[in-house]
Amino acid sequence: MTYFDAASSAPPHPVAREAFLAAWEEGWADPARLHREGRRARLLLDAAREGTADLLGCRPDELSFTTSGTRALHTAIAGSGAARRRVGRRLLVSAVEHSAVLHSAETHRAAGGTVAEVAPDRTGRTAVADWTAALTPDTALAVLQSANHEVGTEQPVEGVAEACAAGGVPLLVDAAQSVPWAAVPGRWSLLAASAHKWGGPGGVGLLVVRKGTRFAPPEPHDEREAGRAPGFPALPAVVAAAASLRAVRADAATEDARLRALVRLVRERVPREVPDTWVVGHPEHRLPHVVTFSCLYADGEALLDGLDREGFSVSSGSSCTSSTLTPSHVLRAMGVLSEGNVRVSLPRGTTDAEVERFLTVLPRVVAGVRDRLAGPGGAASAAAVADADPAAAEVEVDALGRRCPIPVIELAKALPGLPVGSVVRVLADDSAARLDVPAWCEMRGQEYLGEEPLADVGPTAAAYRVRRSH
Amino acid sequence: MTYFDAASSAPPHPVAREAFLAAWEEGWADPARLHREGRRARLLLDAAREGTADLLGCRPDELSFTTSGTRALHTAIAGSGAARRRVGRRLLVSAVEHSAVLHSAETHRAAGGTVAEVAPDRTGRTAVADWTAALTPDTALAVLQSANHEVGTEQPVEGVAEACAAGGVPLLVDAAQSVPWAAVPGRWSLLAASAHKWGGPGGVGLLVVRKGTRFAPPEPHDEREAGRAPGFPALPAVVAAAASLRAVRADAATEDARLRALVRLVRERVPREVPDTWVVGHPEHRLPHVVTFSCLYADGEALLDGLDREGFSVSSGSSCTSSTLTPSHVLRAMGVLSEGNVRVSLPRGTTDAEVERFLTVLPRVVAGVRDRLAGPGGAASAAAVADADPAAAEVEVDALGRRCPIPVIELAKALPGLPVGSVVRVLADDSAARLDVPAWCEMRGQEYLGEEPLADVGPTAAAYRVRRSH
Repeated sequence: MTYFDAASSAPPHPVAREAFLAAWEEGWADPARLHREGRRARLLLDAAREGTADLLGCRPDELSFTTSGTRALHTAIAGSGAARRRVGRRLLVSAVEHSAVLHSAETHRAAGGTVAEVAPDRTGRTAVADWTAALTPDTALAVLQSANHEVGTEQPVEGVAEACAAGGVPLLVDAAQSVPWAAVPGRWSLLAASAHKWGGPGGVGLLVVRKGTRFAPPEPHDEREAGRAPGFPALPAVVAAAASLRAVRADAATEDARLRALVRLVRERVPREVPDTWVVGHPEHRLPHVVTFSCLYADGEALLDGLDREGFSVSSGSSCTSSTLTPSHVLRAMGVLSEGNVRVSLPRGTTDAEVERFLTVLPRVVAGVRDRLAGPGGAASAAAVADADPAAAEVEVDALGRRCPIPVIELAKALPGLPVGSVVRVLADDSAARLDVPAWCEMRGQEYLGEEPLADVGPTAAAYRVRRSH
Repeated sequence: MTYFDAASSAPPHPVAREAFLAAWEEGWADPARLHREGRRARLLLDAAREGTADLLGCRPDELSFTTSGTRALHTAIAGSGAARRRVGRRLLVSAVEHSAVLHSAETHRAAGGTVAEVAPDRTGRTAVADWTAALTPDTALAVLQSANHEVGTEQPVEGVAEACAAGGVPLLVDAAQSVPWAAVPGRWSLLAASAHKWGGPGGVGLLVVRKGTRFAPPEPHDEREAGRAPGFPALPAVVAAAASLRAVRADAATEDARLRALVRLVRERVPREVPDTWVVGHPEHRLPHVVTFSCLYADGEALLDGLDREGFSVSSGSSCTSSTLTPSHVLRAMGVLSEGNVRVSLPRGTTDAEVERFLTVLPRVVAGVRDRLAGPGGAASAAAVADADPAAAEVEVDALGRRCPIPVIELAKALPGLPVGSVVRVLADDSAARLDVPAWCEMRGQEYLGEEPLADVGPTAAAYRVRRSH
């Protein structure tokens, strides 16, 4: 088995295991107690805090250990929002933040606050100028990831931090994906990260609140972790997290260069060797280990399943792999194809041979999925509108009740059978169609005419109109 | 070293270590992912949930793994309060709950809710009749511990649950101290517990919300753990928690009997062998492993230190061991002496010899502390009011700025030098005096006349008046 889902959770680092076992013997008592066992636990906790703060570029008393990166983000947003309530109740976030940020934003909105989003370009990157323009005087907090978890695009955090500092608005950086590689530079105010992203154990997050940042702990009072993470600490896990962060940082530069070369290989070869496939994300400003692409006429869940059978574990931002049946908000915000989406994120130590084998297997897996779906290139393909009058001005393709990528497949099968200038109306209620039909048109150079809601059919149902332009 | 602070955090169970290591290999991936590693993690999580639910007497889908007992309590109170907001905003708690409950109650009050407390008797036990009387129709939630963490007194949970069920009020049981021993019986609605209390790792709590209980997750939306514990799970730790709970339950009956006998020994011998010492807590309705006593004319911190030097780790509810400088709210609610308070909580496997050695060492340690403090029985004792007119109707003892147990020591030294009928006014600003002066009077059969605030001296300053009655 080859695990290519490090951006979701990295395989445990051997150092984490060693540190955990040592701390398990020495650090199980309550570090707030005065007795010997408590003092020993306290020493371990203090050492973990000092070591980790050093790697983050902050002071130990600015760092709280939380129980997850998600929790660190929730607490940071609630705590900053509460402390700056009098300044304003506007939260400014990028549209491609982690769902933990967007869910916090929903909570903020439900409590009477407002939320503004900074949109990314088609590579997933936001622009400093857009942040500067969006920083109003009533902005309580700005939130930006250091790098995107789905497409690997790095954000201009240092520039945005500068703009925020100039505007007197604290910036929270979600550094979950980049902290294993390097400290986040710049004048940010708050930072969140998560240990299981670098090979530490689950159950440990980091929250940094720099001195001078106004912060009101949102939870019921608790003396631990500066009031920012109530509850008995997960001490052996915290020690394991600290030790493994130090270990991964020690050879981060080497691994960065090595994995970056492998990612470049995937980015070059996948679109060349798999037809109708698009690589997404910024070509230069990117994480070393993450590469994402989307395959037309393929179903993300089936691709994951096919790759799993071939021994590869990857993830997908397609709606057909999620319980919510909406495509990844990241791909949506970028306005790129979501169907057949595959994220490959290489763990440290990934070999050239593993990537080579992946590249060998992938075309076969994609072709197999397309074949089963009877896409335009599949063996079982049949023109859905074979009987349509070729002179008709407008043809309807009914894909209601059918999940992605069927609506796009039906469109792609129908259009070539019609005269140039004809219009196809694709009826679909899978919300991925809203993203994928226009994306298909752009890729194919066909004209997307827009969508019409079909409210009487259902809340997500719409007719998507496409004109054959060549 | 002998660790007698199991009620704070139990030493790790060997089974927990084994389970952690196995889950560390198999369960580091995201259980929400579809790939092989994700599915393996999911299996481990499901098995841990089923096994733990079985031991708690609930359904697996009623149990969420949180990151601490504190967090489980915070979430339970906030989530119940939000769901029953239309019923009312009154929270009913016992006065001897864990600080996590009382801090949640403060948050509830700050948000516009009201909080009512059910007072315990002098053993720390609350009465079902008092709960029944306090259950008004606008009560959103009642909260009661299964057993008290400081004095070991068990609460009549089953009866209170019955009263709550009859009144249509959900009951949250804080079962942190008792879950290692047995499932909580009765018709309670919510339950919280914490793994490090039974030898599992820190960073794992349990929250049960029984079917039919109205609950609105208070956190930003998250799909994990029924929305009740956002963030990536601490999976190896959860597996270790589940395995160790099963292990401790397997021999709970044997250990209960064994430790109960040792606790009985301590309860009998301490007041007999250490002068001016009172055992607190209920004599029968109690946890098997916890015993608490208070020593007049002694300073809790010095006792802890003295016992630590003799190789015993215990804890204390005295104000002189806490950063807040207020005595334990539990002892305060019970109205018992707080000075020189010592809690002994025996971990599983404690031997007769260890307890015997503790009982041998204790009188010497207490005497040493009293000696250094120059208490009434100490060598350096001197009458603080030696020059006072013996015929004076009222004598003042100034203990302002002096920490517990000095105010009581000065009172005890002054009173015998005065004629019967005289009054001593003890001036003190250590808030423990509010508890300890009346407690001393009751123990000594002297007449406590009440306190007068000294607002011009400070917020906690008061004059405590005592009449010599014999």
